[in-house]
Amino acid sequence: VSARDEYYETIASRLYTSVVADVMDALGATRQVMHHAIQPVYAGARVVGRAATMLAAEVYEVPAEPFQRELELLDSLRPGEVVVCATPGSVRAAIWGELLSTHAQARGGRGAIIDGLTRDSRRITELRFPVFARGRTPADSLGRLDVVATRVPIEVGGAPCRDGDLVFGDEDGCVVVPAEIEDTVIEQALAKVSGENTVREALRAGARIQDVFREHGIL
Amino acid sequence: VSARDEYYETIASRLYTSVVADVMDALGATRQVMHHAIQPVYAGARVVGRAATMLAAEVYEVPAEPFQRELELLDSLRPGEVVVCATPGSVRAAIWGELLSTHAQARGGRGAIIDGLTRDSRRITELRFPVFARGRTPADSLGRLDVVATRVPIEVGGAPCRDGDLVFGDEDGCVVVPAEIEDTVIEQALAKVSGENTVREALRAGARIQDVFREHGIL
Amino acid sequence: VSARDEYYETIASRLYTSVVADVMDALGATRQVMHHAIQPVYAGARVVGRAATMLAAEVYEVPAEPFQRELELLDSLRPGEVVVCATPGSVRAAIWGELLSTHAQARGGRGAIIDGLTRDSRRITELRFPVFARGRTPADSLGRLDVVATRVPIEVGGAPCRDGDLVFGDEDGCVVVPAEIEDTVIEQALAKVSGENTVREALRAGARIQDVFREHGIL
Amino acid sequence: VSARDEYYETIASRLYTSVVADVMDALGATRQVMHHAIQPVYAGARVVGRAATMLAAEVYEVPAEPFQRELELLDSLRPGEVVVCATPGSVRAAIWGELLSTHAQARGGRGAIIDGLTRDSRRITELRFPVFARGRTPADSLGRLDVVATRVPIEVGGAPCRDGDLVFGDEDGCVVVPAEIEDTVIEQALAKVSGENTVREALRAGARIQDVFREHGIL
Amino acid sequence: VSARDEYYETIASRLYTSVVADVMDALGATRQVMHHAIQPVYAGARVVGRAATMLAAEVYEVPAEPFQRELELLDSLRPGEVVVCATPGSVRAAIWGELLSTHAQARGGRGAIIDGLTRDSRRITELRFPVFARGRTPADSLGRLDVVATRVPIEVGGAPCRDGDLVFGDEDGCVVVPAEIEDTVIEQALAKVSGENTVREALRAGARIQDVFREHGIL
Amino acid sequence: VSARDEYYETIASRLYTSVVADVMDALGATRQVMHHAIQPVYAGARVVGRAATMLAAEVYEVPAEPFQRELELLDSLRPGEVVVCATPGSVRAAIWGELLSTHAQARGGRGAIIDGLTRDSRRITELRFPVFARGRTPADSLGRLDVVATRVPIEVGGAPCRDGDLVFGDEDGCVVVPAEIEDTVIEQALAKVSGENTVREALRAGARIQDVFREHGIL
Repeated sequence: VSARDEYYETIASRLYTSVVADVMDALGATRQVMHHAIQPVYAGARVVGRAATMLAAEVYEVPAEPFQRELELLDSLRPGEVVVCATPGSVRAAIWGELLSTHAQARGGRGAIIDGLTRDSRRITELRFPVFARGRTPADSLGRLDVVATRVPIEVGGAPCRDGDLVFGDEDGCVVVPAEIEDTVIEQALAKVSGENTVREALRAGARIQDVFREHGIL
Repeated sequence: VSARDEYYETIASRLYTSVVADVMDALGATRQVMHHAIQPVYAGARVVGRAATMLAAEVYEVPAEPFQRELELLDSLRPGEVVVCATPGSVRAAIWGELLSTHAQARGGRGAIIDGLTRDSRRITELRFPVFARGRTPADSLGRLDVVATRVPIEVGGAPCRDGDLVFGDEDGCVVVPAEIEDTVIEQALAKVSGENTVREALRAGARIQDVFREHGIL
Repeated sequence: VSARDEYYETIASRLYTSVVADVMDALGATRQVMHHAIQPVYAGARVVGRAATMLAAEVYEVPAEPFQRELELLDSLRPGEVVVCATPGSVRAAIWGELLSTHAQARGGRGAIIDGLTRDSRRITELRFPVFARGRTPADSLGRLDVVATRVPIEVGGAPCRDGDLVFGDEDGCVVVPAEIEDTVIEQALAKVSGENTVREALRAGARIQDVFREHGIL
Repeated sequence: VSARDEYYETIASRLYTSVVADVMDALGATRQVMHHAIQPVYAGARVVGRAATMLAAEVYEVPAEPFQRELELLDSLRPGEVVVCATPGSVRAAIWGELLSTHAQARGGRGAIIDGLTRDSRRITELRFPVFARGRTPADSLGRLDVVATRVPIEVGGAPCRDGDLVFGDEDGCVVVPAEIEDTVIEQALAKVSGENTVREALRAGARIQDVFREHGIL
Repeated sequence: VSARDEYYETIASRLYTSVVADVMDALGATRQVMHHAIQPVYAGARVVGRAATMLAAEVYEVPAEPFQRELELLDSLRPGEVVVCATPGSVRAAIWGELLSTHAQARGGRGAIIDGLTRDSRRITELRFPVFARGRTPADSLGRLDVVATRVPIEVGGAPCRDGDLVFGDEDGCVVVPAEIEDTVIEQALAKVSGENTVREALRAGARIQDVFREHGIL
Repeated sequence: VSARDEYYETIASRLYTSVVADVMDALGATRQVMHHAIQPVYAGARVVGRAATMLAAEVYEVPAEPFQRELELLDSLRPGEVVVCATPGSVRAAIWGELLSTHAQARGGRGAIIDGLTRDSRRITELRFPVFARGRTPADSLGRLDVVATRVPIEVGGAPCRDGDLVFGDEDGCVVVPAEIEDTVIEQALAKVSGENTVREALRAGARIQDVFREHGIL
């Protein structure tokens, strides 16, 4: 197990999107949560990794070399990466599916976050490959959507995301952590988790919530 | 077990939102069903209780006393109550989450119905605290949404709701029963459930649905 | 078991909506996938059968003979049929529910696809009667929606559908197969499934996806 | 000039939709304003008259007798009536246009309010026949929308409207006055107009608006 | 004056979008009307000409060569052409404006139809260069939208459009005439205009609209 | 004429929203343009001035002191100010109207920008008081919307706006200039206007647009 894997596993097991979002809010990075329509394809899907970004656009004929840039990105995928795709928001067709998931998983990819639709949701669920999307459709992207740029800055569900940024997805949605503040965010988020555990115990014991908030400043 | 708890358990075990909605329609109360986007956070969540209403508004800076009115409402929560919150419909941030759920559950609260977003959906599911909302997001309400009034009349998913009104939520959505007609609604709904059982048996046995409808007037 | 049942079971067990959609795309039938908001009421719901179409419209008073055309359609339902209903897209009320499902199932109906809302989702799940819809609501159709025509051409989630067309629904959504191309579509879809199996094996083994796509032309 | 015409001209020249809406609000009739998307086709269009209601539904083939119920309504139109049409909200096609306007104007009709689209907007403007709609499109209703009922209660832009109700439209939008409260509404609205004139003068003269509101209770 | 100019002037002066749409409907070309949100920037704007198509996509950084493909298209513009742009439907920025209009007009371009936003609407109005769009914004396309392909098939407001197709825009919206049926459409539309004149006269004279429709089959 | 008035008149006569937006984009202030749905109430309305901000929220009963904070803001209005109101985006009622316009104009207010609806549009047009809004409705705000805070930071059509920020509105929409960069923005915008005049002349004379853009870098 590499140090990189350990890093991901540690934060995946101890952190969750809402605590990461709170810490970024406090640091002034208030636009890092994706639109709430981007949700996991199967219950329990969770992902953390580095964004491998791609930008798709709607097309209305089959391109000369369909899928070309998308396939290049996939063959360049590094272990620990998460495919993050801006369509932007197009619901004409699925830009993701089972065969791409199979390939990404075989290459050490950790998941996919799609500001658009996916398909093959049953097989993706069987693979336990965590995919987050606006929804599902049987319609293929061929002649409807095509990737026009890869590893460029994109906006996913309203959140800016650069290639290599750390991304999280879980039951509540998805967040992007900008590289400049990643170390600070992870450190503060781990600390905030401990504080929340204390608060939770006090509330379970029946404390007045105004007292608890005054003391801990956490909700 | 109090008489109040027995009342809730009886109607919770025998009634469901669609039969309650039908009876209110027949009485002319046709606006009591909330928008269909307000759905349970976990499969199987069901709630019945008295509305403890709060009204939130979007804000664009952290208020002087954030969460103040919301915490006051929560500390005033009485057993058998359900927090009902109009945001109204804002999807910028979650106005509800796990710590609020933990507190409400410890105080005898029976659930929450949010015309907006929630977060911490995994832990809410583990708590089995029935929350109904338009969706989920990791984004906190601090500096985005703030409660501006409590225990006032509100509109939730298009349905008018006053503090103290009986609210139901289940797999189909949520309804509000105005206090003036509560007794009549409960009585007629319990009767209608019996009629539906008879109709169901006839249809299972292969009867013509036109004959069944002509005889029972129920669908 | 009739030949018809065998036909449906064969294609239901071997085909899925996305492969059917792909084959229709290649044949130039590019508008056959319904809007992605039309999704199964319970996880695992799948349906294949002949469309029994009905067209509903919004109403604002209880009609003289409520439900009349809808009930006629249901009593005329033939084994192997799927009720397909255009509301069109109205979310004021549920046009489908448990008692209609019970009747349809008793008559050999195979499911329902509703470009609108349903209700009674818990009991529908218990029945394992596959219903696809835009969502759920407790609100009844009486005085809100009424069927104005049956067995006419309709548009469901943007896809044209005629009475008798083959319809599929599964975890990814729903598609309509026009009668003129049904034989070709089924034949080519069964062939494409085999090709996908080969591709999947290659990708699992770690092949470059550009090589695989160049060789098989399938994604 | 008939007494009816005088009545309409008096209220058309002295009243406007916002003062009528205010008076109805004060009487508890708070749902009588149509959705703000329903606006005049040309600047300066104003209408007041009795609703001649029709209810349209989307269709997907040319009906056996297209336009039949719509033409019947138009031939039955009485002087002083305004055609009010619920589509409901469909934007697939125009349910109104120039030739219908020409006919309605020739028969003494005073305008049309359409919860949907119109076409022929240039010629309608030349006719000075006041049409209110959600927008314009060249697409005809034939095979897309058909009237399914006439002179029934409808909902137009969210406001309930019965055949014969008084309707107003001007630069701000449209309102429906229920028959039961028409006399009271007109009387009070004429009185409120006088009050507004007084307030306007005070504000023009530079008075503090808090003082003016405290004295007159009007804004 | 060239024959081409005469052709355009003849049809521009005698035809309008609704009659062209009707004739295409009758020929089975029922998807040729653009979404009704695409409207003229100034009252009275009308355009007819050959589509010079371009396809834009959202971007999230300033491209290496911004505007490159768009400027190439503009320098290639031929007299009689109309720039038709699919964004698709993006409202983040204006893809059209005054300087592009000035250039296009200087080169003999006849207008622009944009499935997105424009800016500089006052100067465009002063130029009397007919632009049709979904709306206006001061936001520039640089770093927000970039043209990714030119003179390819596109979809504009839901209507398919190929480079060179005849496009019309006027007070009611925009339509695309496919090249294969252009001659038939123009011929039949000119004939239908004469029929409408006859019908208009009859209705003005007070005829029953049912009689008129039975005789002429035109509305 | 005060220096302040001269300042506003100079920039109002020489600048327009799109050039101001361009200059802010280049400075990295890319979120300063309001949503394109916020448009002038009458053709030709233009405004420049200092934001006097207010934040409204939806209510569902008449507040104890209706309009209180709104009236306080209006009585505190200083010459050169523009009322800027976040509703946020609510279209249930008009938060602005004629009497408020009359008062604001009498006090030296220069206009109003409303992220919501207005009413009394005809009289506002007669006053030539520039109001920008998402649309019009006859429905009053009493019991539907109430101002909950004044002179606080707000978000208007997606653009952040603080009390005192310079705001512009014209035919293309509205922009907010943050105080920190106001001097730089005005200086650079005045310079860019000169550059655009040069480009316009070159394009009118028929130059290749690629050459012009290469030379001047302006479009």
